[in-house]
Amino acid sequence: MGSAKEQQLEDPVLAPAIERARVLAEALPYIQQFDNKTVVIKYGGHAMVKEELKAGVIHDVVLMESVGIRVVIVHGGGPEITKLMKKLGIQPKFFEGQRVTDEETLSVTQMVLDGKINGEIVNGINLAGGRAVGLSGKDAGLVLAKRFRPTGPDGKVGDIGYVGEVERVNPEILDVLDKHEFIPVISPIGVDADGQTLNINADTVAAEIAAALKAARLILLTDVRGICKNPADPATMIPTIRAADCEALIRDGIISGGMIPKVRACLEALAGGVEKTHILDGRIPHALLLELFTDTGIGTEIIS
Amino acid sequence: MGSAKEQQLEDPVLAPAIERARVLAEALPYIQQFDNKTVVIKYGGHAMVKEELKAGVIHDVVLMESVGIRVVIVHGGGPEITKLMKKLGIQPKFFEGQRVTDEETLSVTQMVLDGKINGEIVNGINLAGGRAVGLSGKDAGLVLAKRFRPTGPDGKVGDIGYVGEVERVNPEILDVLDKHEFIPVISPIGVDADGQTLNINADTVAAEIAAALKAARLILLTDVRGICKNPADPATMIPTIRAADCEALIRDGIISGGMIPKVRACLEALAGGVEKTHILDGRIPHALLLELFTDTGIGTEIIS
Amino acid sequence: MGSAKEQQLEDPVLAPAIERARVLAEALPYIQQFDNKTVVIKYGGHAMVKEELKAGVIHDVVLMESVGIRVVIVHGGGPEITKLMKKLGIQPKFFEGQRVTDEETLSVTQMVLDGKINGEIVNGINLAGGRAVGLSGKDAGLVLAKRFRPTGPDGKVGDIGYVGEVERVNPEILDVLDKHEFIPVISPIGVDADGQTLNINADTVAAEIAAALKAARLILLTDVRGICKNPADPATMIPTIRAADCEALIRDGIISGGMIPKVRACLEALAGGVEKTHILDGRIPHALLLELFTDTGIGTEIIS
Amino acid sequence: MGSAKEQQLEDPVLAPAIERARVLAEALPYIQQFDNKTVVIKYGGHAMVKEELKAGVIHDVVLMESVGIRVVIVHGGGPEITKLMKKLGIQPKFFEGQRVTDEETLSVTQMVLDGKINGEIVNGINLAGGRAVGLSGKDAGLVLAKRFRPTGPDGKVGDIGYVGEVERVNPEILDVLDKHEFIPVISPIGVDADGQTLNINADTVAAEIAAALKAARLILLTDVRGICKNPADPATMIPTIRAADCEALIRDGIISGGMIPKVRACLEALAGGVEKTHILDGRIPHALLLELFTDTGIGTEIIS
Amino acid sequence: MGSAKEQQLEDPVLAPAIERARVLAEALPYIQQFDNKTVVIKYGGHAMVKEELKAGVIHDVVLMESVGIRVVIVHGGGPEITKLMKKLGIQPKFFEGQRVTDEETLSVTQMVLDGKINGEIVNGINLAGGRAVGLSGKDAGLVLAKRFRPTGPDGKVGDIGYVGEVERVNPEILDVLDKHEFIPVISPIGVDADGQTLNINADTVAAEIAAALKAARLILLTDVRGICKNPADPATMIPTIRAADCEALIRDGIISGGMIPKVRACLEALAGGVEKTHILDGRIPHALLLELFTDTGIGTEIIS
Amino acid sequence: MGSAKEQQLEDPVLAPAIERARVLAEALPYIQQFDNKTVVIKYGGHAMVKEELKAGVIHDVVLMESVGIRVVIVHGGGPEITKLMKKLGIQPKFFEGQRVTDEETLSVTQMVLDGKINGEIVNGINLAGGRAVGLSGKDAGLVLAKRFRPTGPDGKVGDIGYVGEVERVNPEILDVLDKHEFIPVISPIGVDADGQTLNINADTVAAEIAAALKAARLILLTDVRGICKNPADPATMIPTIRAADCEALIRDGIISGGMIPKVRACLEALAGGVEKTHILDGRIPHALLLELFTDTGIGTEIIS
Repeated sequence: MGSAKEQQLEDPVLAPAIERARVLAEALPYIQQFDNKTVVIKYGGHAMVKEELKAGVIHDVVLMESVGIRVVIVHGGGPEITKLMKKLGIQPKFFEGQRVTDEETLSVTQMVLDGKINGEIVNGINLAGGRAVGLSGKDAGLVLAKRFRPTGPDGKVGDIGYVGEVERVNPEILDVLDKHEFIPVISPIGVDADGQTLNINADTVAAEIAAALKAARLILLTDVRGICKNPADPATMIPTIRAADCEALIRDGIISGGMIPKVRACLEALAGGVEKTHILDGRIPHALLLELFTDTGIGTEIIS
Repeated sequence: MGSAKEQQLEDPVLAPAIERARVLAEALPYIQQFDNKTVVIKYGGHAMVKEELKAGVIHDVVLMESVGIRVVIVHGGGPEITKLMKKLGIQPKFFEGQRVTDEETLSVTQMVLDGKINGEIVNGINLAGGRAVGLSGKDAGLVLAKRFRPTGPDGKVGDIGYVGEVERVNPEILDVLDKHEFIPVISPIGVDADGQTLNINADTVAAEIAAALKAARLILLTDVRGICKNPADPATMIPTIRAADCEALIRDGIISGGMIPKVRACLEALAGGVEKTHILDGRIPHALLLELFTDTGIGTEIIS
Repeated sequence: MGSAKEQQLEDPVLAPAIERARVLAEALPYIQQFDNKTVVIKYGGHAMVKEELKAGVIHDVVLMESVGIRVVIVHGGGPEITKLMKKLGIQPKFFEGQRVTDEETLSVTQMVLDGKINGEIVNGINLAGGRAVGLSGKDAGLVLAKRFRPTGPDGKVGDIGYVGEVERVNPEILDVLDKHEFIPVISPIGVDADGQTLNINADTVAAEIAAALKAARLILLTDVRGICKNPADPATMIPTIRAADCEALIRDGIISGGMIPKVRACLEALAGGVEKTHILDGRIPHALLLELFTDTGIGTEIIS
Repeated sequence: MGSAKEQQLEDPVLAPAIERARVLAEALPYIQQFDNKTVVIKYGGHAMVKEELKAGVIHDVVLMESVGIRVVIVHGGGPEITKLMKKLGIQPKFFEGQRVTDEETLSVTQMVLDGKINGEIVNGINLAGGRAVGLSGKDAGLVLAKRFRPTGPDGKVGDIGYVGEVERVNPEILDVLDKHEFIPVISPIGVDADGQTLNINADTVAAEIAAALKAARLILLTDVRGICKNPADPATMIPTIRAADCEALIRDGIISGGMIPKVRACLEALAGGVEKTHILDGRIPHALLLELFTDTGIGTEIIS
Repeated sequence: MGSAKEQQLEDPVLAPAIERARVLAEALPYIQQFDNKTVVIKYGGHAMVKEELKAGVIHDVVLMESVGIRVVIVHGGGPEITKLMKKLGIQPKFFEGQRVTDEETLSVTQMVLDGKINGEIVNGINLAGGRAVGLSGKDAGLVLAKRFRPTGPDGKVGDIGYVGEVERVNPEILDVLDKHEFIPVISPIGVDADGQTLNINADTVAAEIAAALKAARLILLTDVRGICKNPADPATMIPTIRAADCEALIRDGIISGGMIPKVRACLEALAGGVEKTHILDGRIPHALLLELFTDTGIGTEIIS
Repeated sequence: MGSAKEQQLEDPVLAPAIERARVLAEALPYIQQFDNKTVVIKYGGHAMVKEELKAGVIHDVVLMESVGIRVVIVHGGGPEITKLMKKLGIQPKFFEGQRVTDEETLSVTQMVLDGKINGEIVNGINLAGGRAVGLSGKDAGLVLAKRFRPTGPDGKVGDIGYVGEVERVNPEILDVLDKHEFIPVISPIGVDADGQTLNINADTVAAEIAAALKAARLILLTDVRGICKNPADPATMIPTIRAADCEALIRDGIISGGMIPKVRACLEALAGGVEKTHILDGRIPHALLLELFTDTGIGTEIIS
């Protein structure tokens, strides 16, 4: 048989075909493994801004859904909020480095998230052949939140306004949409017990929703290659980190800055029953497909 | 028995109780008749602006849902759109009396509808004990639209920008939400075959959705008592108008001005299979309950 | 807004409408609360004899069923049994004040209950638009009974013949009928393990059936206003009595005579898991609707 | 093999066993054929009076039900009605040989049918291990009737009072009971559009119910061996008669007297879609089993 | 009544009919008792070789299925395997009296079992009106086996080749076939964890399958009348043996030779939850029907 | 973006990953398109003989099943039948070039097909993680056949013994197995109305089963690259042939020899409602995956 096979590989028609067949044979077990499983994607960064990347992510989401994965998207706000605030002449205020969200700011945030970005993602998915439904955490009581009160360096608790943290996720509406094969696209707005809407960090919302759904995967799309020993060198990316090792990596400064809250969101998700979490470079074409359907993956996974 | 009964009616405790019992006995057959039937409400006008009326309408919607009516709400934009346009310094343009919707105006419209008003209604219903989910016509391909091109008096077709008319309603998401007892709250935004969002008249959207759902009732909440022979005198309100008589009433000027498109929306709904349509004064407390659950009703019904 | 509202209330058309709306708004939450709940009614007394009251109770039952309440009726025998016994020349016998039921008396009892009264109630409900099915405790083994042997004042156990007490209720046939929206109308006849039919007190049968169905309400229709501190003065009626307080009220003579076994039936029902029990004046028009659907109620409720 | 077999048949243990096996092998295909089929039995005559026959019929009914046959029983009144009338001193009146049913007679009829005979059959079945539910044609609107007005020999239409003929059977309650494996036992009482109860011939009620249920069999239990050429000689019984030949047999006097309305009921049932009808001697032990489960049968079948 | 009855028994037409009725009345409760119950039959011996007996067993199986019994057949190999081995010139080898199954022998065994006998039984059932599906223990992983290694008299474990013992039965495919009313016909081939097929004793396979299905009955068809105190005299057959007594009967030599493994299979089945087991003479016509549907039975039952 | 992308492609880690992502993105829509669709594979030739190819085909079948394709396998007999005939000293006889199948030959054929090859495929699939069930056309009446009588060149109809042609396929058992996610593996044996088993051409059986199942694809695995204009040169393979053009290609000799019956089987399948048929080279690794899941495919498809 050996020689026949070699002959085939030299066959200018068959050789690439057989290479393709190998990729398929590698991917199919993953596809099967994710059948009917939930993958929550925090969508943000460049992948939400650059047209070509945007189209790519949306295309991948529709493909994932088409092979039986239950995809849930949570999006951030991007630079649009700041843009509209500027137009309306609203001055940003800060407390200990965090943006204070007064009523006007909250109103702008909601208008941009629910009245602009959310609809654009929904529209994109529908045009690509999927069936998306936009939600905020207010809809069907999806995200119950309470006010977030950060502690300053002086130990005093500060008031940063209408900023929330997740208290409870009520996933019923997600189950309903999933059962009928709609893709939920969720803005990170919650509502407290008094009906006050609150702005929440999108990574956290994604993590809590993933936990509530006992998702197979939480994927945070970012603008870096993954967690790298030397951030300047993608070749030093760590493919797999155990939850137990994260705090040490934070102390050592390998996980630092904006990556810290993302890693914390992953840890929360793992603690809540999510199987695996991924920090993935949204700038790589088809990053989602590669991470889910190939043996090697391309980002950093954090596992328990 | 007669005298015993008279005695009871004079009984200071029982007399009002018995009066209440009569209202109930009158209402129950209506309640039963609407069980599992769909009522589409176009929500707008004062009832959407004044806090007390707002709370009343929302309370009635939750009650209707609680006794088994499938309520669907379509809301308009109110004065909020104009307010934000002013803040952003956008100059309104008009063609033959109709507002031209350029890209900037469309963006503002969507932000106000989907990012402000829709969420407020959803929030209100949830606080009142209902379970609402906000939608726009983009979600799940609910409202497929095409550009609306009005003809000017010179016979020329004008371009008023991103304004649409309904081409087709795809009610699947409404059926799904209804099956799980969520109340859909819909903003009048459609999307055309190329994915372009379009702003549409809310009365028309409500009428088309009612037709697609073969609703039992379409109710347009307005700021007038109904259609009156003499608009200045509520006592001249016409309780029932047949569809066939509407054009004559328009010619006679009894139906005029802003009432004309509302009546046309009702006629479309009737043609599409809706059982009855109502033009109702949203300023009357519990107007919805009175119209649906009492023998007399309080607005004008248009029937086929 | 205030002045507009005042104006409306003075409006001669709207003012009563708005009053009606308030009754409705008050009733709807109750209607919703009873949706799909079971209410067992012991039907007897004047309400079963006087034509006008009869029609009223039956109408209310059909209304209750129409808004989703599962109504179960247990009826007594009224004066008809005595009437037929007289015609047949049967002499009543007594033991310690209780009627002795020999074979002939039992035969008359069954003929009147199952061959006359039951069918009349069934017929009435069907004519009023409901769908009733008559049952006795023999049907489908609904009421398994054993002989009731009262103890005389001398401590001796007496034989009062074919009189039974409930041993076990097998509610399967009631569930089947309910599932298909039939109203069961039940005569208080049971059957013992040897197939002997026995006559049972209707209040007890109603209480045991309510317990077996985990009913939301047991309502005993009587010919008095409720339990009154001074039976001569309806104004002294006690609206709510706790189960724990009943024995004291019996000792104090406030609950006395024929009311004692009724209260005992209520206590049994409560012990068996019924939510609330009511002793209600069947002579008040729409007593059932008022008790169930208004804030105040009109009889005495006994609660645990 | 032959000799081995002969040897077995001589085996004193095996020979009868093998004979039994043949009966079984013959019966099983019939049992299978009737699985989930409906058999309507008109129960009356000696089989309803003599204790031993009564027990036998009821036992057979329970066996039939146990192997998957849907049995429906319609019973007559027997001599009990006359007995009670006598006790009450009611004088029977006749019109052209038919008993006139005035209000008093109707009342007695219902009390005996629904308050005595029906319950006894229900009780019997339940004691024998079945699960019976007693019904009259009033229950769930089962039998809608109209007054029967016979024509006298002078061509005048006579008034025989509260006697009915079937107008429509509404079998919903029978389907419900069957689905839950309850055996309906039905008294021949109908109700007209005004709610007036009417006494109806039980053979006719059985035939109409069989037609409404598209029953596989209608079996009329009688006190004769079947239709015999010479009524005095059971050996002349005709096993099978085609519907088309019945009128000729009536003309020839072979079908005569009380057998005529029974045959007419069979013809009606056949016209209404019943597969086969049987006139069967209720005095023969296990007549039902023999007729249904053996090749030869024992009564007269009338087929279309 | 007595005399009427005697008269009937003398009636030359009715007397045998009534005898047949008694057999039926006796059988029906058994038929009902086995409704939807599983009976596993080990089919082998003369009943699988002689044409007339073969047709009889198959006919009975189809009848049993037709009245709602779930029949499962496990067959042996009969003399066909030896026949084919001879034709192919394969020399049988033995170890301690057991046939050694080398690769060639295994191949012949499978070809005869799955390629000849199994198909003939399937074909026979289908021709008789049943719906059979042939299986081996390989299909759907039905029988997971491991190599059977007998211990010789010297205490050494011998290698008898590809002979297996059951490790686990996975009855899913049997449930699926049963749900759709197919009769499974199973050859006693198992497969081990490495995919090696193994030949297994059919009695054991039948017993393990019966246990896995929690069958009501395991019936081993043999060529003897049952277990007899004196094997030469069928009249000494023991109708019922308790599991606890079997070892004593083996020690006493009453159960001996080839009967020992059959009894052991029965004990295993009983231990696994089978209700009753039978050793039955397959040479008696309709042996299956007689054993299942009559009061006395005709073989030996072993019960726990 | 362009330059970033170029940079990525040069990235030694990412470049091949992105290539793999492209294959996946190409394959996913096909995978989705075949979800829940039926693909019937005629399995034979080298792919059934050479161990490596065998493992490959079976692996692909399990992958296909795992992503939701309903796979049905029909296998041929290969050289094994001839081998066993030789061993048994059976002389092959021929009529007009066709093998005459006498009883002995039929017996050998069944033993090899059902007792050897079928089980090996079933075993292979089960070991690879699938769940296969072996069937012949006898099981559950799957393939009803009649004798095939070829016409000789002299116009005389010849008798070639137990060779059949398909008369009707009864796919119920296939639907049942599919519903429970079992893979049917079918040998080409049919049965006629008298229960006589017949040997049938496997390509035809596959085609008729595909038609009966309204399969999306019929794939015939062969030992050639496809239909080639010049059979000696694989580069001349015709990727797509319309059904209407096949007869011309036969006349021109491009389709010739053993390929003719294969093409005829494809045409029959297309006529019976199969969407597409493929003649595929079973020697190419992962031929099935490439044909189904890539844009180009690798064999010849025949379409209507």
